[in-house]
Amino acid sequence: MASRTDLGGAECPIARSLDDVGEWWSMLILRDAFDGYTRFDEFQRNLGIAPNMLTRRLRKLVDGGLLERRRYQARPPRHEYVLTTRGREFLPVLITLAGFGDRHVPADSRSIQLINRTSGEPVDAVLVDRRTGLPLDELDVGFAAGPGASAGMREHYALSSKD
Amino acid sequence: MASRTDLGGAECPIARSLDDVGEWWSMLILRDAFDGYTRFDEFQRNLGIAPNMLTRRLRKLVDGGLLERRRYQARPPRHEYVLTTRGREFLPVLITLAGFGDRHVPADSRSIQLINRTSGEPVDAVLVDRRTGLPLDELDVGFAAGPGASAGMREHYALSSKD
Repeated sequence: MASRTDLGGAECPIARSLDDVGEWWSMLILRDAFDGYTRFDEFQRNLGIAPNMLTRRLRKLVDGGLLERRRYQARPPRHEYVLTTRGREFLPVLITLAGFGDRHVPADSRSIQLINRTSGEPVDAVLVDRRTGLPLDELDVGFAAGPGASAGMREHYALSSKD
Repeated sequence: MASRTDLGGAECPIARSLDDVGEWWSMLILRDAFDGYTRFDEFQRNLGIAPNMLTRRLRKLVDGGLLERRRYQARPPRHEYVLTTRGREFLPVLITLAGFGDRHVPADSRSIQLINRTSGEPVDAVLVDRRTGLPLDELDVGFAAGPGASAGMREHYALSSKD
């Protein structure tokens, strides 16, 4: 944990995303939140996690702006955790993680599926280039230094030997 | 760590994906691998990580089938770590993580950008429904029990209150 800031590098958006979420299994809390769960005891039951760990992870997700803590009962005080707009922006990550996990599982054997909630139809999510519509797995794509890159980031990409 | 199997649930493809990768920061090793780095000392320098931690994470990524360990020098023995075909399938996760991190950063301020390596042009990655071509953020999408769901997984989705 101590080396996080070293590893993170606030400049890298992947590292920043990981830092916002906080911990590895926090992604499963987000999954549950997308699945419609909001309450501490629900997350605890679904995830089989110790209360103190769950408390810490929920707090981190609240601090990271992905969940909002709302009181839904005054006596005794009870809170629920709901996705913020920022939290909802995390869904593509969960979709691609699920796609990676199920990549070699036949569609009719999958335990979960992405659906269009309006129509109930399954949705086959694919990453494409917005401009051309071409699926990214048909292109040779990779990361490169962007317009706002520091000297260190430019060096990172200049030094690597991709070819 | 002890509660991983509880949390994981081999049935959930998101949990399986997290388990294949192993640890939180291992995603940054994969990022570096996509950026063209292959050698232990390169990962160590880029990530500022203790050698024993890096060794453990690389081993987990090899065990998970995402990296292949190859000897590139006999005396003294030196190994490099290269993405497997399975490892390359992880790129969409890194792309969506980067997209989440940079969502509110103007394009001209970004430190990294996705490019088409053939043309050198920037690529704007977007998740769409393969069948209709509609961007997922214009649809109300969510996860639901799939055809291969267990009774427990069906209950998970039946019990949640999405509306």
